[in-house]
Amino acid sequence: MLSCRSGFNLRVQNQVVDPDSSNDVRGGMLGQYVMNGGEGPNSYAQNSSYQGGVIDVAKPILEEEISRKLDIKHISSTFRIADFGCSTGRNSFAAMQIIVEAIKRKFETDGKVMQIPDFQVFFNDKVTNDFNTLFSSLPPQGLYHVTGVPGSFHSRLLPRASLHFGYSCFSLHWLSEVPKAVLDNTSPAWNSGKVHYFGARREVCEEYANQYAKDIKSFLDSRAEELVPGGLMALLVPAVPASWNPNSAYTVLTEVYHLGSCLVDMAKKGRFYEDKIDSFNYSVYFPVPQELKAIIEKSDNYIMERMEILDNPGKRSLTGPKERASYLRAVNEGMLVNHFGTEIMDELFDRYTKKLKASPLFSDPNSDKTILIFVLLQRKPIMFF
Amino acid sequence: MLSCRSGFNLRVQNQVVDPDSSNDVRGGMLGQYVMNGGEGPNSYAQNSSYQGGVIDVAKPILEEEISRKLDIKHISSTFRIADFGCSTGRNSFAAMQIIVEAIKRKFETDGKVMQIPDFQVFFNDKVTNDFNTLFSSLPPQGLYHVTGVPGSFHSRLLPRASLHFGYSCFSLHWLSEVPKAVLDNTSPAWNSGKVHYFGARREVCEEYANQYAKDIKSFLDSRAEELVPGGLMALLVPAVPASWNPNSAYTVLTEVYHLGSCLVDMAKKGRFYEDKIDSFNYSVYFPVPQELKAIIEKSDNYIMERMEILDNPGKRSLTGPKERASYLRAVNEGMLVNHFGTEIMDELFDRYTKKLKASPLFSDPNSDKTILIFVLLQRKPIMFF
Repeated sequence: MLSCRSGFNLRVQNQVVDPDSSNDVRGGMLGQYVMNGGEGPNSYAQNSSYQGGVIDVAKPILEEEISRKLDIKHISSTFRIADFGCSTGRNSFAAMQIIVEAIKRKFETDGKVMQIPDFQVFFNDKVTNDFNTLFSSLPPQGLYHVTGVPGSFHSRLLPRASLHFGYSCFSLHWLSEVPKAVLDNTSPAWNSGKVHYFGARREVCEEYANQYAKDIKSFLDSRAEELVPGGLMALLVPAVPASWNPNSAYTVLTEVYHLGSCLVDMAKKGRFYEDKIDSFNYSVYFPVPQELKAIIEKSDNYIMERMEILDNPGKRSLTGPKERASYLRAVNEGMLVNHFGTEIMDELFDRYTKKLKASPLFSDPNSDKTILIFVLLQRKPIMFF
Repeated sequence: MLSCRSGFNLRVQNQVVDPDSSNDVRGGMLGQYVMNGGEGPNSYAQNSSYQGGVIDVAKPILEEEISRKLDIKHISSTFRIADFGCSTGRNSFAAMQIIVEAIKRKFETDGKVMQIPDFQVFFNDKVTNDFNTLFSSLPPQGLYHVTGVPGSFHSRLLPRASLHFGYSCFSLHWLSEVPKAVLDNTSPAWNSGKVHYFGARREVCEEYANQYAKDIKSFLDSRAEELVPGGLMALLVPAVPASWNPNSAYTVLTEVYHLGSCLVDMAKKGRFYEDKIDSFNYSVYFPVPQELKAIIEKSDNYIMERMEILDNPGKRSLTGPKERASYLRAVNEGMLVNHFGTEIMDELFDRYTKKLKASPLFSDPNSDKTILIFVLLQRKPIMFF
């Protein structure tokens, strides 16, 4: 049994253990690169109902917060909204429609129908995202003007003080890079023989937690420059509870653990050299709620208007092991192909599907204890420009 | 010999004749759909030096006009520039850099260094444009924030009064659609047996000219809503002279004519049914300068600050028939494949290359009399919002 108490936040007293044991578990991370593009059977577009379920739960909260907190007094002729990490757009379009319609209603209920602005939505994802699919699947609409913004949301993307509403859903778990030390065989944090930090040594977990804290800070700092004073930002951040019972429950971390173990199995069977495992690590991190709260509270630029834990709202959209495997493939394949090559993908996900099927846990969506954190931030009115 | 006096503007007294004869010729159009994407040998990215040469000639003019005419008094923290018809970006990046640097110099020479705004560039092209290639070829820079805007520039794309500088180079010759009447066998303008209007009947020419006038009006009307009062717009519009001698000169129209004749030859040889020719027409139009001037002058929204004919600045970048054929393939293939299928493309462009090689005209770039019109417009300060 490996222990991994998080170094990032000692207030979070939890223990990371071997997920195959009977003890509670926690921790977390996933992959790098962008979602699978296009519209094919393994595409993110066809396998993102999990995140889609999030929108349904987030809708009333977004509507309530926009109605309560959005200050429309100083809005001029354009209202700018950005989605950071939009992928190929399907879930993003639904969210943007909810937000724009809620803002319009706010103008209407405030008796300012004549002052309803033009809406401009900035769809952001990495340069390598499939923007062609995003643009070709745009809903028929006249609700807002569409723009795509290529680039990492860990850095500046928009002009200063130009953004009125920021949004990011199921994206902030992606790290800007794998922590260097976990791939460095001279470092005490070298993660030899593993591809993720769930169940790994304390030093590995610390490197990941530090990278996550640094990346969330970069995100918040960049957005603080882009948001207008008083501007709002709604974040939907995947996370894990401080603990769960691996005999009766799992989280996204458990899934990543099993995918990693399939890779290790394949290396042992000679499908590729074992050192391929040492030179690869997932670059995603799932915090516990207190950890995310602490990182955000360190920023002087925002007022935290709301923070709420949603109980894994998308889980019921994935009805069984096969659907879960398709979903993970759409999200992870780009990253995996880049390191291991295309030829092992079918075998890898076949093995993974079998592994999930072998456990009764994954047939019951209610056993998924992954959580989603809703955060609403308001940019403080600091005179920085 | 076919005659085609333009109905659109009787002040332009010119005659369209069979370009194989020894008389002067004029008229014009080309294709639909977007440029060839990617970076391959037939891509627009690898075959757009013709348009690239335009930038070199336009650079001093753009710099001079920005220095003379740009009003920077009312610019706030963001300066927004849009390129309408950017394709995969190579030439667009060069133009945007010239424009941004010229604007920064304007702030410097006016003693307003501290007020230099953030720059945001909107790269626009049709939804089907290869934005993935555009975004992956962005120059390493910090000059401006990048956004892509999918959609037809014949309609609204940006919020009202949000744009400070509009630009369009070598794009406004694309029509929004083939005039319906030229494909309608019940219409007097039915263009049976031909695929373009060069050398066609008067009715066909009139339909094209009317479509062009309507499309330029839509473009100007849309931009008038998007530009801030006092905002500038620089247009580089391909055009043809009122006349030229086909024994010693040619224009882009001559090239299109030859490509069309290759299609007709192939239909006669049974490569496809001849009625495929009747159901296809190029959707591009090249005006004469007076015609463009008259269309622009009809708009009440702009002051025409400058209009100048540039002598085909890109022509020297295409050194011979092979290069000319590659260029036309990159620009036209998407449209042609859509109607005739992929399988005839190699034969078509082989025939076309041979046709150009058979004439001594196309070995001398100086025989190319295609012109480029530079227009600088200023949005009138009308209170429309």
